[in-house]
Amino acid sequence: MQERQTGLPFDDIRALIRTMPGPDEAAVAAVRARDGELTKPPGALGRLEQIVEWLAAWQGRHPPNVSRAVTAVFAGNHGVVAQGVTAFPQDVTRQMVANFQTGGAAVNQICNTFDVGLKVFELALDIPTRDITTDAALDEDECAATFAYGMEAIAGGCDLLCIGEMGIGNTTIAAAVGHALYGGNALDWTGPGTGLDEQGIARKARAVERAVAFHGDHIHDPLEVLRRVGGREIAAMAGAVLAARMERIPVLLDGYVATAAAAILHAMSTTALDHCMAAHKSAEPAHGAMLERLGLSPLLDLGMRLGEGSGAALAVGIVKAAVNTHAGMATFTEAGVSEKS
Amino acid sequence: MQERQTGLPFDDIRALIRTMPGPDEAAVAAVRARDGELTKPPGALGRLEQIVEWLAAWQGRHPPNVSRAVTAVFAGNHGVVAQGVTAFPQDVTRQMVANFQTGGAAVNQICNTFDVGLKVFELALDIPTRDITTDAALDEDECAATFAYGMEAIAGGCDLLCIGEMGIGNTTIAAAVGHALYGGNALDWTGPGTGLDEQGIARKARAVERAVAFHGDHIHDPLEVLRRVGGREIAAMAGAVLAARMERIPVLLDGYVATAAAAILHAMSTTALDHCMAAHKSAEPAHGAMLERLGLSPLLDLGMRLGEGSGAALAVGIVKAAVNTHAGMATFTEAGVSEKS
Repeated sequence: MQERQTGLPFDDIRALIRTMPGPDEAAVAAVRARDGELTKPPGALGRLEQIVEWLAAWQGRHPPNVSRAVTAVFAGNHGVVAQGVTAFPQDVTRQMVANFQTGGAAVNQICNTFDVGLKVFELALDIPTRDITTDAALDEDECAATFAYGMEAIAGGCDLLCIGEMGIGNTTIAAAVGHALYGGNALDWTGPGTGLDEQGIARKARAVERAVAFHGDHIHDPLEVLRRVGGREIAAMAGAVLAARMERIPVLLDGYVATAAAAILHAMSTTALDHCMAAHKSAEPAHGAMLERLGLSPLLDLGMRLGEGSGAALAVGIVKAAVNTHAGMATFTEAGVSEKS
Repeated sequence: MQERQTGLPFDDIRALIRTMPGPDEAAVAAVRARDGELTKPPGALGRLEQIVEWLAAWQGRHPPNVSRAVTAVFAGNHGVVAQGVTAFPQDVTRQMVANFQTGGAAVNQICNTFDVGLKVFELALDIPTRDITTDAALDEDECAATFAYGMEAIAGGCDLLCIGEMGIGNTTIAAAVGHALYGGNALDWTGPGTGLDEQGIARKARAVERAVAFHGDHIHDPLEVLRRVGGREIAAMAGAVLAARMERIPVLLDGYVATAAAAILHAMSTTALDHCMAAHKSAEPAHGAMLERLGLSPLLDLGMRLGEGSGAALAVGIVKAAVNTHAGMATFTEAGVSEKS
């Protein structure tokens, strides 16, 4: 077993968490003031109104704008696949990265539909993380470096960041993160992933249970959970979410694995995900429970369980409609519409 | 009380219902065959896959296409507002029609976001229907003529039709239709509409109860429900939905009032809405129960309760993403991705 390394890297992450900016309350107030004048009954646009408030709070401006949305997809490989926890072979991670790059994946089509940019981050696919049932996935330097690399997701600028992933074996990793952070039974956090049968799910849950038991005493620190039972795309996504917060970029989280990455930050600070919205609720059974732990209410619930940022990119359409509605609607005065009697 | 008129008009509608086309099973089979080859685990796109099958079934082609989506908004006025059932004055119906026409309403911005056309149908706004608590809303000729006018929604062509409405007082009408078709208590079908308080809702429910009791024996025929406790936009929307079916145009239903119009057709034939999808579940409390009666599962649940086709137009984004995903994704062979082990 890998010994825990001490040093600056994790401390740098902790320092960022302590200096996260808060919401821009003045921008929120400006949204509410204008919303009350728009030609509709108060509250009649439901979550579209909340989306606009959230964007304004975290972009720090009124009106908020979404003209440069980006989906960042992080791909990693996992030693835990040796435990027979996956329906597809590990080669598929690299093959799907190539598919993203040539425009053939689902997320490409969804991004194109809503004019969302796509960035793919390959994370040392030839060097899978170590098998979490018998070792720490990463040492601290690797983990912190991957976290820092994930922060590059926002390089070049964007005004809305969608977080997604690809990685054969990574729903096992997400389950281990969930089980490590929240307890319960390993099976509570384990699902079919890309298509395991009941027997496969039971085997996967046993691997999750063994992993969390193995690391036992060391996983009270969320960053230790990340490096011991996590993986590269989880670390990078956590970095991307935190970088977005520092730069006032709202984040749409995709499915179970992206949410597990966000959960690491939430375990470090309960306000760390205030700039995030859950784009959708995945069909992966434990996703709903994890979102509840994080206090996130998903925008969409369409039975999707693909990952690769597909649900997050899909939600950009809803977000853009919300922004356009707030910006473009006439007020009661402008339209000569009578207000509530 | 108005006597029931007999004659051809309603018989023409019944004849159309008897000759509705069914789904194109060959097109559905073609969707499934291609879907099984796309670079994703089977079923991983959830309802996006079902949307594509549904479009293919009712457009009668593979691949289905959505490049000319149209939102049709039907506006009517209602004598029942004399019963104090609304939060906004009746003038607002006409004022909002003007707002649609000048591009200032929520539905305009949402349609623009997803490149959806917008058509507004004004239905004799200066001649509100008769008060349903003491009279039939329409006579048979008026009702059938309005139904036929609604069928014009598809004139000029479209490949996806969103059905919406505007009409101060029309959630009372929708509640009366629900109560007449499905029984229960009037209050089960009555909600706040544009913003009634508890006292207002109780008053509205009493009006619904009186209306349905008044027409009592006459409302076993769905078309009698339509003309007696319905209204012009309800009749026109029912016509639009049926016309779309005859011309193989899939339909997205908006909220409670649009769904009540569709319910009239469903009461005439349980297969009459097979070409329709519920775009969203409104915050109007009875909408969910009505959707359940119709066997429709809403795509979105965003707490919206605006009407005017806003929820239906919003769902077009989801539908377009589904179409693009099916059409544009690479197959396993094309992308060189390994299949499930």
